[in-house]
Amino acid sequence: MSNINYRKGTGELENWLIEESVFDMRYLGKCESVFCQGNGYMGIRNALEESYVTETRNMFVSGTFNKFHETEVTELPNLPDITNITILINKRPFSLTEGKILHYERTLNLKNGEVVRKAEWESAEGVRIRFVFSRIVSLSDKHAVGIQAAVTPLSDDIEVEIISGIDGTVTNSGAQHMVEGEKRLYDGVYLEYISETSESGIPVAAYAAHKFQMQDGKAEIKYLPIIDRRQIKLSASLQIPKKQTVIIEKLAAVHTGRDVELLNGQVTDKKELEQQIKEKGQAHIRLLLENGYEVLKKENDAAWAKFWEEQDIIIETENSFDQLAIRFALYHLNIMVNKEDKRVGIGAKALSGEGYKGHSFWDTEVFLLPYYLYTQPEVARNLLEYRYMGLVGARKKAKEYGYEGAMYPWEAAWIDDGEVTPLYGPADVVTGKPLKYWTGLIEQHISADIAFAVWQYYLAAGDEEFMNRCGYEMIFDTARFWLSRLEWNEEEKQYEINDVIGPDEYKEHVNNNVYTNYLAHYNILLAGRLYDELKQSTEEGKAESFKRLEKQLMLEKMREDIELKADKLYLPKPDEKSGIIPQFDGYFDLEYLDISKFKESTQVLTIYKELSQEQINQYQIAKQGDLVVLLYLLEDLFDEETKRKNYLYYEERTLHDSSLSKSTHSIVASDLGMSGQAYEFYEGSCKVDLGEEMTSSDAGIHSASMGGIWQAAIQGFGGVRMAQDGLRIAPSMPEKCKKLSFPLHFKKAVLHITVTHDKLTIQNKGKTVRVNVKGKEVELKEGLVYEC
Amino acid sequence: MSNINYRKGTGELENWLIEESVFDMRYLGKCESVFCQGNGYMGIRNALEESYVTETRNMFVSGTFNKFHETEVTELPNLPDITNITILINKRPFSLTEGKILHYERTLNLKNGEVVRKAEWESAEGVRIRFVFSRIVSLSDKHAVGIQAAVTPLSDDIEVEIISGIDGTVTNSGAQHMVEGEKRLYDGVYLEYISETSESGIPVAAYAAHKFQMQDGKAEIKYLPIIDRRQIKLSASLQIPKKQTVIIEKLAAVHTGRDVELLNGQVTDKKELEQQIKEKGQAHIRLLLENGYEVLKKENDAAWAKFWEEQDIIIETENSFDQLAIRFALYHLNIMVNKEDKRVGIGAKALSGEGYKGHSFWDTEVFLLPYYLYTQPEVARNLLEYRYMGLVGARKKAKEYGYEGAMYPWEAAWIDDGEVTPLYGPADVVTGKPLKYWTGLIEQHISADIAFAVWQYYLAAGDEEFMNRCGYEMIFDTARFWLSRLEWNEEEKQYEINDVIGPDEYKEHVNNNVYTNYLAHYNILLAGRLYDELKQSTEEGKAESFKRLEKQLMLEKMREDIELKADKLYLPKPDEKSGIIPQFDGYFDLEYLDISKFKESTQVLTIYKELSQEQINQYQIAKQGDLVVLLYLLEDLFDEETKRKNYLYYEERTLHDSSLSKSTHSIVASDLGMSGQAYEFYEGSCKVDLGEEMTSSDAGIHSASMGGIWQAAIQGFGGVRMAQDGLRIAPSMPEKCKKLSFPLHFKKAVLHITVTHDKLTIQNKGKTVRVNVKGKEVELKEGLVYEC
Repeated sequence: MSNINYRKGTGELENWLIEESVFDMRYLGKCESVFCQGNGYMGIRNALEESYVTETRNMFVSGTFNKFHETEVTELPNLPDITNITILINKRPFSLTEGKILHYERTLNLKNGEVVRKAEWESAEGVRIRFVFSRIVSLSDKHAVGIQAAVTPLSDDIEVEIISGIDGTVTNSGAQHMVEGEKRLYDGVYLEYISETSESGIPVAAYAAHKFQMQDGKAEIKYLPIIDRRQIKLSASLQIPKKQTVIIEKLAAVHTGRDVELLNGQVTDKKELEQQIKEKGQAHIRLLLENGYEVLKKENDAAWAKFWEEQDIIIETENSFDQLAIRFALYHLNIMVNKEDKRVGIGAKALSGEGYKGHSFWDTEVFLLPYYLYTQPEVARNLLEYRYMGLVGARKKAKEYGYEGAMYPWEAAWIDDGEVTPLYGPADVVTGKPLKYWTGLIEQHISADIAFAVWQYYLAAGDEEFMNRCGYEMIFDTARFWLSRLEWNEEEKQYEINDVIGPDEYKEHVNNNVYTNYLAHYNILLAGRLYDELKQSTEEGKAESFKRLEKQLMLEKMREDIELKADKLYLPKPDEKSGIIPQFDGYFDLEYLDISKFKESTQVLTIYKELSQEQINQYQIAKQGDLVVLLYLLEDLFDEETKRKNYLYYEERTLHDSSLSKSTHSIVASDLGMSGQAYEFYEGSCKVDLGEEMTSSDAGIHSASMGGIWQAAIQGFGGVRMAQDGLRIAPSMPEKCKKLSFPLHFKKAVLHITVTHDKLTIQNKGKTVRVNVKGKEVELKEGLVYEC
Repeated sequence: MSNINYRKGTGELENWLIEESVFDMRYLGKCESVFCQGNGYMGIRNALEESYVTETRNMFVSGTFNKFHETEVTELPNLPDITNITILINKRPFSLTEGKILHYERTLNLKNGEVVRKAEWESAEGVRIRFVFSRIVSLSDKHAVGIQAAVTPLSDDIEVEIISGIDGTVTNSGAQHMVEGEKRLYDGVYLEYISETSESGIPVAAYAAHKFQMQDGKAEIKYLPIIDRRQIKLSASLQIPKKQTVIIEKLAAVHTGRDVELLNGQVTDKKELEQQIKEKGQAHIRLLLENGYEVLKKENDAAWAKFWEEQDIIIETENSFDQLAIRFALYHLNIMVNKEDKRVGIGAKALSGEGYKGHSFWDTEVFLLPYYLYTQPEVARNLLEYRYMGLVGARKKAKEYGYEGAMYPWEAAWIDDGEVTPLYGPADVVTGKPLKYWTGLIEQHISADIAFAVWQYYLAAGDEEFMNRCGYEMIFDTARFWLSRLEWNEEEKQYEINDVIGPDEYKEHVNNNVYTNYLAHYNILLAGRLYDELKQSTEEGKAESFKRLEKQLMLEKMREDIELKADKLYLPKPDEKSGIIPQFDGYFDLEYLDISKFKESTQVLTIYKELSQEQINQYQIAKQGDLVVLLYLLEDLFDEETKRKNYLYYEERTLHDSSLSKSTHSIVASDLGMSGQAYEFYEGSCKVDLGEEMTSSDAGIHSASMGGIWQAAIQGFGGVRMAQDGLRIAPSMPEKCKKLSFPLHFKKAVLHITVTHDKLTIQNKGKTVRVNVKGKEVELKEGLVYEC
């Protein structure tokens, strides 16, 4: 039932192409998301040039958050569209839903990010035409977009009218974030649309310009500008003789007042910002039109070539889909992050859809950060600096809730927005009443997740400067939050954390969630240890950091509180009989439910079609396994036997309805040597977006799932883990996987690791480093190859 | 090239049906507007049930004005859609752009306002299906909409899924006026969507419910609610065996916080308003579903039958199009006005499109009011009371401009909004810069037009109560505006009105525009005369009125000013040689341009594609003839010879690019006995919306043109005019017109007039009245028939 597949391609494109081979207007969302293009600064869904009723035409620029209305939360606005091109053939609009499709293919070339769509089509009046559309969102020029359309009438001479430009009528599912702009046409060629977000007041300048080239050089074109409400377009009419090809190029540029290069974000005057982006944009579009699509593509291709040279991963299995899938993940991991801008996080759908409004969740720290940490540590640092800047909002949230320290928002947008989780979602099918989203109120583990991630970053990158400037402050202040958050249970003589949601969001309002309690405990102990270290340190940076934070964060009190409370925090232990650790208080009292039928569904959240939230709460059903995530993050908490028992017990009860679930299960299965299941779950996580289900990516790709694919492969099969005492590499290769080859950064070392069933080869192109390989401490020498 | 035509129908539907016989997705706008349904309270474009890329799906409720953003003017918001119904046949959405259309017709039945669409269609997979869609917007229950869809598979059993409900993602060309609403499903059946305009804070409650009826009574239906951002829908899945018909009914109700029946508009608390419309709406949708489509239709049909019984006009010509066209005009004239609500005017596109944002112009007074005045005087009074309430804004505008009295806004929206003309329009094709709209600043004749209309109403209806309460105040205060507006020209020793736009909007910034100066003069003299009358009057109402206004409007000073200035106001006179009256100062210095080629175009405003505004200003080209409108309104200003000369001179120079132009020319041609031209222009005005040009009604029907059609027929052919000394009936029947028969209200008389070339018959069903018939004063006796 899927229209999407992959092509071996030939020669150098083998395992680089994802293809849509059947046009089906019902499933446009799938490839719009999966084929989304971008560069971290902007993301453009692959909505087709011509319009369809079922399309979602989105362009997002990172950081341009806006609130539509005081009753809504801030979100990434859908910016004026620059991709639409209406093509009238003999006065009738070209549309694949009309006439006859003789041939169709659309491919995303992961190697250079170009999407090429080829269609041979017969119009209702019987004219045969070949179309080739190519599109890039440049990786080298992050404000630039290029579209090329080649139109060749095969059966008759045709009359063609192209209507193309900038369209500011687009919305986020009806929410309009942009004030109507200024529309200008310069020199009869350059289209300009200057608008502004309605609440945050961010100016946005969009430009478009067109080029027409007839194969034999002779084209007589009649131009007419079309200026309407929220639209500025150009109409170009021409004749194309049979078998001649006309090549239409549309070049476009987008600049916004949030662009990091605007005097390093120091310009705050709106008029000046607008002036600057206008100047940039006007110069930019002139250059783009002069250079044309091919030059833009050449530069883009070079940037991608560099990326793949450094980042490609080889995974050899019987199923070449596995290879394609990891490249697919790397492609999206590369276009989802704005590497130049520390002020922005990664949205749950990245820049590929309206889902989750562009907000960042714990996904970033737990599922995405490891990839960046081990491959581009400077990007990982940027992402953590985003959280560092977010301390303002985290402290505000803590205060609002009556706590101390930093209580990170469950959903984060612009750095000083604080909590942006919406309060209400869609209505409950049984009661008809809107569901309240509790996550923003009580899903609190994110503060510990961030502290955990900071420390992982330090362990892996050894970045003292970051720790002194940001890291210690984040760890101390999240610990302070937890210390103030703990509730004393006089009966049990213990501290507890009650009324929370763990990663398993099917269970709301639980007490002593295993994941939350252990992570909070980790956070607190880490802060205590680092306090002691810092206090005694004579290193300049550390001493300075301590001096700066001591008073500001009342560190002495924090240390005393840790002494008082840490050991008394209740940590759920394995049941003496069964060895199973309860997910939260009273878990064992819940009823067991056979969920195999829901597990078989290719759709997620199908359980909500049969059970209400309240009913789900009464069963041992998990969206994802809290304990399994814990086993992944803190691998030394329990002995292997306990881990195995609990993994199996909870997996049976887990629906994997979170896109993060299968990859984590894959890693833990790898850890436990259950490589068959590990492989199965790896494939499952690859299918979150690339699978048969045609509507699950409608709201955008699952960005954390891209990190999950990498994690399952590198941390699972490759056995790469950052233990407290250093890097560990202990592969656990599934039988079906013959070879895994990947780059890995660790401190000053730049490793290239190749794993087969027989051999592990590590080449170190960086500095000498000590690593635990297969349980043995070894020194990987600068420039040498290590084998075992 | 037109897909729209009319059908003779048979029997009682002869000349009542307007038909679209070819489906063409490029021209959806034409029939969306022309087939627009409504009842004055709401208007719904006839966008089809299934969606198309080229559609404009609009529902407006009169008076619900909202400003999208501080940079825009207020407009009628496109309210959450209730008309969309997606029909999936064997899992593929039904769309006429796919598969094959075997038969297609859509008819608007003017007799009862029902639109019926019949299609026989073969899906891409070869399944033949018959669809019959019927829709009414009830004339009797003004908050109710009914849609009925009959689906009959002709060739195979089919699986059908219907997705239908309320969709709040719609916008005004991208501008979203509604805050996202509360979505609720009651009893698994009733869909509720409560939202609110974003700036004016008007709550809007939309309801929908569905009914399914299988021909043989057996339908097993699976329901599933769909609740998404800004959407609440129901999915219903069922099997339809071959040759069985399933009838789907969608009933919907709309209530808003502006509804006049809400304690007569006295509720101001938003929460209370919302509560009230929710209660009304919930009860309403239950009743509608219980009754079903047929009951709603029956009541609607009865209301229409009553309308036609009173209002039908018979016009017999060789071309039955003429008969259909006047009924078409009457249909729209009946659905464009909210007869129960004095707080709302009539928009330039009525409630049929986004064009002109729902604003009222001089069109109402000059082109629409005569129809209501002579057929439903209470409606005419309401429309004038809307202007009376608008005095607040008119006085504010005068003050802002440094004038006295009431300077009516060129564009009016809600009663206290004042001027709402936007400042900028689309960009100039030559310069690329946005065009400034000067009309709101300097098109000032509207104040005199309103005063003129008030007096016409008094002359026709003899409504002393209105005059005492509102009318005198309006005439005095507009006169005060003009008196303060006059500019003294020391050189010429005369008062002038400089820097204005007349009805001919192609000419901006002119001095002493003939229309403006004469109408202002009329307004001033009228005020003077009425002042004298009132001052001396001993009638209680008049005396009271005078007492109330004397101080408030400083009437004594007004009277003195009139004495001082009225005679010195410069009024352009016929040139001694040519007899031509200059349209404004320096008109004869402009160059003549042969505009025959633009006149031949079926499109309007084509001249803007070749000339810039500045260039147009330099030629003797008119959008509509200022002098011709003047000759119509003040027929006794000039002798017949002068009138004829000027009519011919200016007509040659007029592009008729205003939808108001041809009808006025028709009347004046009738006046001048040029009945051939009169007939030609009558047909021209009928074709403003019903003609071959398929895109000119995209933004909505031309509401004033509907009045124009009536004017050309009744005031032109029928020769009906309100002279200062009473009603005049002097038919001027075109040769091609055999018979004209129409109702006419005058004071307490209810006349029914039938004109043929030989005879004039007047039946008086009301009170006795004196009328000038064919130049002779006659008494039309109560209950008798007069012939001559």
